[in-house]
Amino acid sequence: MAKRIGILTGGGDCPGLNGVIRAVVLHAHNSYGWDVVGVRNGFEGLYEEAYVELDPRRVVHLLARGGTMLGSSNRANPFAYPIQLPDGRVEIMDVSARILQNLAKLDLEGLIVVGGDGTMSFGKRFVDLGAKMVGVPKTIDNDLEATDYTVGFQTAVEVVVEAVDRLQTTAESHERILIVEVMGRYAGWIGLTAGVAAGAHVVLIPEIPYDIDRVVDAFHRRHGRGVSYSIVIIAEGATPAGGDHAVAVKGDATRQDRLGGAGERLADAIQARTDYEVRTVVLGHLQRGGTPCAFDRELATRYGVKAVELIAEGQFGHVAALDRNVIVAKTMDKAIKKLKLVDPAGELARAARAVGIELGA
Amino acid sequence: MAKRIGILTGGGDCPGLNGVIRAVVLHAHNSYGWDVVGVRNGFEGLYEEAYVELDPRRVVHLLARGGTMLGSSNRANPFAYPIQLPDGRVEIMDVSARILQNLAKLDLEGLIVVGGDGTMSFGKRFVDLGAKMVGVPKTIDNDLEATDYTVGFQTAVEVVVEAVDRLQTTAESHERILIVEVMGRYAGWIGLTAGVAAGAHVVLIPEIPYDIDRVVDAFHRRHGRGVSYSIVIIAEGATPAGGDHAVAVKGDATRQDRLGGAGERLADAIQARTDYEVRTVVLGHLQRGGTPCAFDRELATRYGVKAVELIAEGQFGHVAALDRNVIVAKTMDKAIKKLKLVDPAGELARAARAVGIELGA
Amino acid sequence: MAKRIGILTGGGDCPGLNGVIRAVVLHAHNSYGWDVVGVRNGFEGLYEEAYVELDPRRVVHLLARGGTMLGSSNRANPFAYPIQLPDGRVEIMDVSARILQNLAKLDLEGLIVVGGDGTMSFGKRFVDLGAKMVGVPKTIDNDLEATDYTVGFQTAVEVVVEAVDRLQTTAESHERILIVEVMGRYAGWIGLTAGVAAGAHVVLIPEIPYDIDRVVDAFHRRHGRGVSYSIVIIAEGATPAGGDHAVAVKGDATRQDRLGGAGERLADAIQARTDYEVRTVVLGHLQRGGTPCAFDRELATRYGVKAVELIAEGQFGHVAALDRNVIVAKTMDKAIKKLKLVDPAGELARAARAVGIELGA
Amino acid sequence: MAKRIGILTGGGDCPGLNGVIRAVVLHAHNSYGWDVVGVRNGFEGLYEEAYVELDPRRVVHLLARGGTMLGSSNRANPFAYPIQLPDGRVEIMDVSARILQNLAKLDLEGLIVVGGDGTMSFGKRFVDLGAKMVGVPKTIDNDLEATDYTVGFQTAVEVVVEAVDRLQTTAESHERILIVEVMGRYAGWIGLTAGVAAGAHVVLIPEIPYDIDRVVDAFHRRHGRGVSYSIVIIAEGATPAGGDHAVAVKGDATRQDRLGGAGERLADAIQARTDYEVRTVVLGHLQRGGTPCAFDRELATRYGVKAVELIAEGQFGHVAALDRNVIVAKTMDKAIKKLKLVDPAGELARAARAVGIELGA
Repeated sequence: MAKRIGILTGGGDCPGLNGVIRAVVLHAHNSYGWDVVGVRNGFEGLYEEAYVELDPRRVVHLLARGGTMLGSSNRANPFAYPIQLPDGRVEIMDVSARILQNLAKLDLEGLIVVGGDGTMSFGKRFVDLGAKMVGVPKTIDNDLEATDYTVGFQTAVEVVVEAVDRLQTTAESHERILIVEVMGRYAGWIGLTAGVAAGAHVVLIPEIPYDIDRVVDAFHRRHGRGVSYSIVIIAEGATPAGGDHAVAVKGDATRQDRLGGAGERLADAIQARTDYEVRTVVLGHLQRGGTPCAFDRELATRYGVKAVELIAEGQFGHVAALDRNVIVAKTMDKAIKKLKLVDPAGELARAARAVGIELGA
Repeated sequence: MAKRIGILTGGGDCPGLNGVIRAVVLHAHNSYGWDVVGVRNGFEGLYEEAYVELDPRRVVHLLARGGTMLGSSNRANPFAYPIQLPDGRVEIMDVSARILQNLAKLDLEGLIVVGGDGTMSFGKRFVDLGAKMVGVPKTIDNDLEATDYTVGFQTAVEVVVEAVDRLQTTAESHERILIVEVMGRYAGWIGLTAGVAAGAHVVLIPEIPYDIDRVVDAFHRRHGRGVSYSIVIIAEGATPAGGDHAVAVKGDATRQDRLGGAGERLADAIQARTDYEVRTVVLGHLQRGGTPCAFDRELATRYGVKAVELIAEGQFGHVAALDRNVIVAKTMDKAIKKLKLVDPAGELARAARAVGIELGA
Repeated sequence: MAKRIGILTGGGDCPGLNGVIRAVVLHAHNSYGWDVVGVRNGFEGLYEEAYVELDPRRVVHLLARGGTMLGSSNRANPFAYPIQLPDGRVEIMDVSARILQNLAKLDLEGLIVVGGDGTMSFGKRFVDLGAKMVGVPKTIDNDLEATDYTVGFQTAVEVVVEAVDRLQTTAESHERILIVEVMGRYAGWIGLTAGVAAGAHVVLIPEIPYDIDRVVDAFHRRHGRGVSYSIVIIAEGATPAGGDHAVAVKGDATRQDRLGGAGERLADAIQARTDYEVRTVVLGHLQRGGTPCAFDRELATRYGVKAVELIAEGQFGHVAALDRNVIVAKTMDKAIKKLKLVDPAGELARAARAVGIELGA
Repeated sequence: MAKRIGILTGGGDCPGLNGVIRAVVLHAHNSYGWDVVGVRNGFEGLYEEAYVELDPRRVVHLLARGGTMLGSSNRANPFAYPIQLPDGRVEIMDVSARILQNLAKLDLEGLIVVGGDGTMSFGKRFVDLGAKMVGVPKTIDNDLEATDYTVGFQTAVEVVVEAVDRLQTTAESHERILIVEVMGRYAGWIGLTAGVAAGAHVVLIPEIPYDIDRVVDAFHRRHGRGVSYSIVIIAEGATPAGGDHAVAVKGDATRQDRLGGAGERLADAIQARTDYEVRTVVLGHLQRGGTPCAFDRELATRYGVKAVELIAEGQFGHVAALDRNVIVAKTMDKAIKKLKLVDPAGELARAARAVGIELGA
């Protein structure tokens, strides 16, 4: 019987996951003669033993397709896993031992874990428990220290910029302030990168708590020059400095989660201080779906190939990473040690300020 | 001195307005030797005498650009126009006489009024008062009886379909119900057309008050076949039949206006009845901005050319209209007599049902 | 056993064919409980008895996918069909009797033939021989008299306009004449529609043999106004009036077919008369591939639904057609009687001239 | 009078040049109070003293626009510059002294030279002659050693991948070999990167002379697996090993230059060896025009900002470069020392082979 390896995709989906899966299947099959087991819905599939055989025929046309054919799950943490008891109650349990048993039954040469910092930290714990896992860094937030780019980030940026291009003409025709809320709870890479690329006038990100008066001044300065519209990009995790208008946050958490909130809060704050007409657009899931851009398709393919090689070389506990245009191996430790955040005084933030973008502080 | 004509764009902006302006300027200038006066911000510019000279150099590269270079205004109705008094109060006045005086000063061969049913009805009243106006039908809602297609509609549909393509992969990967709220307060053309083109599973429009139980049944049927995600397109004006879950609407009107409401209301209703995970995306202004699709650029150009010819022929009180792929003249009366709504038993709705789309009733 | 119907796609592929197939399968299955047999590679599959069972699972995600999942064939004409003899020679034979036998074996309620005027005329002959066929009009050329729009045309126009948008900036930066060769051997709909939508400066189509001196004059006039670049769209079937520079055509026919020729010929003629720098781009197959635009996806769906209903109603020998935004039935006779060509004096051509486009005569 | 700096764009245009210009103008104006002189048509404008004043109003909406508002020129080399003599003859002269004089008249704090290796090497020579120049690396070929990415490359890759997505469905429907010829005379970065991202089956680049028999074997292997179509990406500079089918090149050089040739030559070679149907598409200028992708807009902005800072710091003879996601300064020497070529044994080429792409050797 042929040797085999496995692959799972954890956390939220993003463009490029299918490209990783495809590259893993093709390289394993063509170069090593390995079969590939797809684990459904992240670590949940390891617990539930939900698998699908993957061969080259299954991955045709997959490179251009968004999402993940393996599915994802909210039950992402195998060390704190919700189990429904016979009486209907849900208990949080550590199911890692069961997962290790199931892994042993699969008898894999190695398991490729595609995910962000959460998924990767669970992978690391399994490696410490003896599992043969390697990783591929994926998150649209691009906030993993180990790699220059994570799969999915660049597509999110392209989607945001395309949306702002569309919104700009309306903002201008109607002389409005247009607030575009983008993803980024902790890291502002999407917001800042897209803001620079789209020519936004104000960009607010989690790393730089914003002074609402500076933001309003930016609008006034533009109006003073006869320009009566402005584009604001705000990351969902951006907050005002000192929380001075935090009182504007109303409603329950679920609703906030569903519709965002940072953009709406900012809109309320601006309207409390000015007469400008304000509109808010929450891009939400548009940023994480759909066909990946070429950059992410290429990166996904190279990551997938590298992940197979990490298994072939027995480099468990390592992840594929992009280092100055070359894919290299880094340790999972390094990948999850700390979030890569925007440096408010770094080159990108300074470039943004240099072209006149108000960062709110 | 050369003879001259004028043009204004009223109501909300939409893709293709600049294409109309460009065609008017080129045809007037090249074929008739007429100058063209652009009136800023719709009828407001006629009241304020805010004009801009338009010549062929000004319209270079304009065809592909969204929005309207002439601007638009909230003070759209010259027969009920908000005037700020010296004491700060705002009074609603009929300023049509002043506008007719200003028009007389301009001494135009004719004025082209680009707009939806509101703008067109004001134009009709001015024509009845002796003004030399002709019209071009524009609205992303496509709800003007006089014409097969209004400028802007097809671009809105393309934007919605592209967005649904992106959202579908996420809905599928995460096994969610994804609600996409689109424009359409009274007419469901965007929602139904985009729903058919995007392969949505449920489409809810103003013309068909929806039965929430039928909607939920559609999800159950899909799950029963092992398909654990669904795409819903809901027009902003869609309402439940009998208003049975209208109680879910909270918050003040302004907020509703800013973030939509139909989608959120539906999400609440679904979550009150099922365990499915639901997410809502409000496309909002994305639908009315940005570069027009080829269809709208072509249509805009042909409308602009026809409008100039209506003036040349003295056909005031007429609008350019598309009739089976040919541009013809119709009376403004005909254009505004009644809204063109989706026929719940018509061919398009039947086609939607035929491919399995649940229309909610 | 369930009743069943069949479907085949003939002629060149184009965006939207898969949308027709999907709609047919869904409507037949959901509304009538019919099975659907897909015939592979047009009429060839009827001769070879190459079939595939189509059910709703097979058509998931098909709406957005270009091409045809059923394949197409060069052996398109069953009344003059190339058969390879045992000695290797190829003989052209009438295989219609064999096809009628195979059809009888299939025992279909009806067969849906999706194609252009060639495919439709073969369908008509089979109907006259007693076969139960109905049609769906498809051709990127939009040259079928029976319908306002054929499936695939609008996508081709969108692709051309997007390409011209890209090419325009280079033409302008480098002060060049840029010739874009587009499809259209007999009908100039793609060229003229895309030319109007893209703001081209010269558009040359088969219906209007062009005077090279007029074309060159157009460049001179632009240069005289200080504009040192021009965009030319030329249909592959456009020819010079009187054939005065036909001598410029060199090389064998195969090469011409592969790389086009109309654009290159025009480039040679311009360079023989001026010092302007000229570049040619042949868009070729880009125009007929890839994801269909929303317009074609909607149209494909409505056509597919109507085709099933034509079978249900026993209206054999009819095709689905778009008539002022409503899908109706027309006879195949009407569909193939004559090509729908651009009227050089019609409204679209006049609109093109009105905005300054040189049509070459 | 305000101090001022200058900027010129040399060589072929590419997406992102306008973004560099915009960033330079905004940063110079906002941060230093400097005026900016735009030099028209590369070094030609310095010779002809063709300048345009650039201020923030001039660069509005420029970020998303392809090409270069400053124009480009074929008279790119000031050290071997074609001068038309009074008698009509053209003489090649060194006009560097005149250019240095004109530069002295301009009295700039520094001149930003945006270009590829040619433009940069002229800049270096002027710096050696005492001119205050700094550089920004731009070329769609991405073949400058000094930087991870040049402006314009990623957009070219995105355009190629989008085109291949479109062409793939036709190749598949018609069971054809589809050859896509892309840019790259010396470096195969566009071809290889796009090939990996698009899932091409064969990729041929200048760095790896191809063995036609290996290429044909790749098609046979695919057909042997029942897959009857293939996508080939070939760089314009790719050549067969040993030149065994070079005889297939016909026609004069001008024609080759205009329509490419590598793709056609390959098509002839395949058709001489197989019965497969082959089609060739030459993407040509599509790759260097149109709106830049977000990646290039961001990069262009950061490069423009850095270039202004290089002048402020007096770092003449340096270029802005991307080094692991951060913009740094490198010497012009380093930028032009040697072309950055694809390493046939490097990680990217190995990744391509790992997913089954035939590289021809």
